[in-house]
Amino acid sequence: MGGKMNTFYRNALCGELNANDVGKIVELSGWVDNRRNLGGVLFIDLRDRSGKVQLVVNEKQPAAFELAEKVRNEFVLSIKGEVVLRSDQNINKNIPTGDIEVEIQELTILDTAETPPIYIEDNDQTNEAVRLKYRYLDLRKPKFQKMLMTRHKTASIARNFLSDRGFCEIETPILAKPTPEGARDFLVPSRVQKGKFFGLPQSPQLFKQILMISGMDRYYQIAKCFRDEDLRQDRQPEFTQIDIEMSFVDKDDIIAINEEMIAKIMKEIKDVDVKTPMIRMTYQEAMDQYGSDKPDTRFELKLTDLSDIVKDSEFNVFSGAVKKNGSVRAINAKGAQDKLSKKGIKGLESYVKIYKAKGLAWIDVSDGEMKSPILKFISESEKQAIFKRMNAEPGDLIFIVADTHEIACNALGQLRLELSRKLEYKLEGMYNFLWVTDFPLLEYDLESGSYSAKHHPFTAPLEEDMQYLETNPLKVRADAFDMVVNGVELGGGSIRIHNQKIQERVFAALGFTMEAAWDQFGFLLEALKYGTPPHGGLAFGLDRLVMLLTDNDNIRDVMAFPKTQNHGCLMMDAPGNAELDQLIDLGISVDEI
Amino acid sequence: MGGKMNTFYRNALCGELNANDVGKIVELSGWVDNRRNLGGVLFIDLRDRSGKVQLVVNEKQPAAFELAEKVRNEFVLSIKGEVVLRSDQNINKNIPTGDIEVEIQELTILDTAETPPIYIEDNDQTNEAVRLKYRYLDLRKPKFQKMLMTRHKTASIARNFLSDRGFCEIETPILAKPTPEGARDFLVPSRVQKGKFFGLPQSPQLFKQILMISGMDRYYQIAKCFRDEDLRQDRQPEFTQIDIEMSFVDKDDIIAINEEMIAKIMKEIKDVDVKTPMIRMTYQEAMDQYGSDKPDTRFELKLTDLSDIVKDSEFNVFSGAVKKNGSVRAINAKGAQDKLSKKGIKGLESYVKIYKAKGLAWIDVSDGEMKSPILKFISESEKQAIFKRMNAEPGDLIFIVADTHEIACNALGQLRLELSRKLEYKLEGMYNFLWVTDFPLLEYDLESGSYSAKHHPFTAPLEEDMQYLETNPLKVRADAFDMVVNGVELGGGSIRIHNQKIQERVFAALGFTMEAAWDQFGFLLEALKYGTPPHGGLAFGLDRLVMLLTDNDNIRDVMAFPKTQNHGCLMMDAPGNAELDQLIDLGISVDEI
Repeated sequence: MGGKMNTFYRNALCGELNANDVGKIVELSGWVDNRRNLGGVLFIDLRDRSGKVQLVVNEKQPAAFELAEKVRNEFVLSIKGEVVLRSDQNINKNIPTGDIEVEIQELTILDTAETPPIYIEDNDQTNEAVRLKYRYLDLRKPKFQKMLMTRHKTASIARNFLSDRGFCEIETPILAKPTPEGARDFLVPSRVQKGKFFGLPQSPQLFKQILMISGMDRYYQIAKCFRDEDLRQDRQPEFTQIDIEMSFVDKDDIIAINEEMIAKIMKEIKDVDVKTPMIRMTYQEAMDQYGSDKPDTRFELKLTDLSDIVKDSEFNVFSGAVKKNGSVRAINAKGAQDKLSKKGIKGLESYVKIYKAKGLAWIDVSDGEMKSPILKFISESEKQAIFKRMNAEPGDLIFIVADTHEIACNALGQLRLELSRKLEYKLEGMYNFLWVTDFPLLEYDLESGSYSAKHHPFTAPLEEDMQYLETNPLKVRADAFDMVVNGVELGGGSIRIHNQKIQERVFAALGFTMEAAWDQFGFLLEALKYGTPPHGGLAFGLDRLVMLLTDNDNIRDVMAFPKTQNHGCLMMDAPGNAELDQLIDLGISVDEI
Repeated sequence: MGGKMNTFYRNALCGELNANDVGKIVELSGWVDNRRNLGGVLFIDLRDRSGKVQLVVNEKQPAAFELAEKVRNEFVLSIKGEVVLRSDQNINKNIPTGDIEVEIQELTILDTAETPPIYIEDNDQTNEAVRLKYRYLDLRKPKFQKMLMTRHKTASIARNFLSDRGFCEIETPILAKPTPEGARDFLVPSRVQKGKFFGLPQSPQLFKQILMISGMDRYYQIAKCFRDEDLRQDRQPEFTQIDIEMSFVDKDDIIAINEEMIAKIMKEIKDVDVKTPMIRMTYQEAMDQYGSDKPDTRFELKLTDLSDIVKDSEFNVFSGAVKKNGSVRAINAKGAQDKLSKKGIKGLESYVKIYKAKGLAWIDVSDGEMKSPILKFISESEKQAIFKRMNAEPGDLIFIVADTHEIACNALGQLRLELSRKLEYKLEGMYNFLWVTDFPLLEYDLESGSYSAKHHPFTAPLEEDMQYLETNPLKVRADAFDMVVNGVELGGGSIRIHNQKIQERVFAALGFTMEAAWDQFGFLLEALKYGTPPHGGLAFGLDRLVMLLTDNDNIRDVMAFPKTQNHGCLMMDAPGNAELDQLIDLGISVDEI
């Protein structure tokens, strides 16, 4: 940043000094990273956001030396001194400023510091609860400073990319209307309209569609979204989306602009070239081949259908599944015989049961040491047919699941991921982006006996499937698409319904009475009366994107002030107590437990 | 934007076509602004975000003509046609596309429209409640489309300006800790920690200070802020700040960078050259001369102190005020005798009473027709001394208030603004930016008998005034500064306290027990133990800035989805009802009224 960060307290940044600056008198400010006394000479590593530089002072500068003796780690200093070359033996090639040091002429202690409860270094092992309580110290670590800068840079690239293409960033309300279905809303009691509540938005979905109806043409927002859910590792009660909507577009228009944006971010942040257009795969293909709607294509291990081979097998587990309209599918773990013990395979059997598979069959190709227990049930011709279809070679292990189609695909999809970990595939530095398209419009929940939207209720059905909406709704595909990278869903979008009648039909398919639909989404249905352009859009999870860009697998590590699993902020001790007066003002009471 | 907005449905924008495009076959999409049938030829004005263009079709294109006959206002069309020059008599110089029209070859109706309940034109006079209910139609008006684009552009300029200078945009939580004092918080009941509440932040103040303690050096955020207040014309329950914080800076550093940013925005959006450095004025000077801490300096009418002249006057209203440590102040409305009737002056007397002045004295210079009622009470020498000090000339009117210092200054300050309106000063196109500095640190509230912070409790006192903090707190000035333009506070900032002991002393001066201070702000006081850089910052009201840039005086006109005075969104009908299940989940009940 050079001179642009000059202030009253400094005219240079610690981490930017190098041999070109030798001879310059500089003013620096920062934190004491380390102080050492070597035979009457004091060395101080001074740290600011840009990095560290070594300061040196001896008794020839008595005033500065005396102060420097009092200095401890994390004191805040301001100094003036001359940049000098280090002697050869003191050169430190490990840091960018390792060629030089700064001889202190004047030193001011701007603030003192107690001994911090954590180590201000990237490899600090303090437990997370302590680190979150002292988040301001945790954030002093270079890795977090870099993460926050990367997050900022990512948002900046996205914003400028979109602005350059005619997108207008528009702020939508945080105090919105509660929506009873879907994920749980955070509610905000209204003081002015007692007994009523705002809902914090789970996404700006309806606002951005309304903006398309208002003719704003291209919208984006880096938007805060809220879901009052029980947290898993990769969720937070508030999270951030790069939220995009466009008018007068089809799917290809949306996909083209968004993959270009992601490619630009990957290039500028990670110097990775992402090939565009990205591969596209239908939901059906993804499920059939990878057992997942977010396939990790960095490795093969694809699912193969064996149903036709075993449909008349004497092995009832196989043939029975096929007869019940289920599926028998398999993956071939190439050369895995060497890497998996019998115990390891037992573990995989338990693993697929988590995903509701009734069992896991396996065959060791070339009939090695392991001896598959199912061989006695299937005929030699079946075995040979399976080997042929699976391209089986000596040393391979074939895993088979026979179950309903959904369970067979999903369990094998999960097994595929587990195998990639167990077999320690080398995947580093690979970024396999792709689009999954043509998702089902609806899902059926057996338990509640009701349909729900796979994406959201505003997603357009594919035109050729509209005919089934009332008669066979599960057959209807949506004009929806997800961007997936390495098995992670980075973003999802769709073409929206832009016709009131079709929107009403979809609400009906979802089980809404027209009264309920109008009660809840009346403003959208009303808006759809007055001329709506064909439109669609997409939202990327910014937190997930930054996790990808910074190689983090903990969402808390990519947010400045994350919450813990019980929705708490350990630093500020939130949530907190409300005063009785406040509750009376709001017209609410806390229930006794 | 040209080709960058090309999609499946268009390859040009309506408002960008001109004579250079003649002969081109273009595809356009947009809304029907108007349709006219002139002797078998149909003219359609098609509108998109970029503007309007005239389409024309006749019976030589029977398919398109037949469809075009069905078209009504606000239908959404997609057309293909050739750009042709208009005949000379049809050229419309009032619109950018007035030289040309597009001869339709193909036409598709993408969506129909009912007759809208408001007129989609800038001079629509529909009442605001109807306009807000149909906000998506209101936003189709060119002025709102332009406003949203200006708002976006303003934020973009600010973001890029700050990014270029090393500022890192960092998102701070919306689900924060409630703060019992200050303005009222919106509360969010926690489901996971029943009985506890989040507070929506009134500003990211504490988070940004924590980020400085974390070494992030330069922070900004275009941040949503929330206050549960009863609304005045210029307030909204949620509003937006350009929020800035910097480390290792003094006041001059903060002022320099922020005035440069505002000057850049004024130049790029309004092509106005703002002179920097901006004028600075202390709070004391602003109050003494303009009777306001946000002086409108587009006109003179300054306040003048007459206390010394009238301190021994026989006119007890004057001398009595001085004896009670009050003040006698005056403004000279040059040449106002011609413009103000006696009745007009009576009106001004009532006006100053709104601001608690006991009365308003006035003298017509040159003893014109109006004859001041106070002349009989003051001596000729006093009158002459007043005339001299006020540079009185024939035709002037001098207005005098005698009261406590605060009331005299404030009432005359308000009178000054009222006179500028009554005398119809020509102020258009003037932008008088200035800084007001050295605000009092504290205010004293007579009613509650307690002190409160003029800015906020984290503002640094001026070093030379620290000595009075315990003995004479009202004498202590703060290192705080507001940017003011034309009588409006555009932003305010300060240097913050970066020392735990001083922060504790200020909390004590504000009447906090140490227990209460730690209970509420413990995380800040704790953070101040571990090495805090000198830091400070500023926040601009983005809504107010956009009002200035778009010449709007209604804050609802510069937000996409504003709320009404009762905190309602008329479009989506928020706030809404919560389901009983949701309340049970949250462990709260709505009180019976």
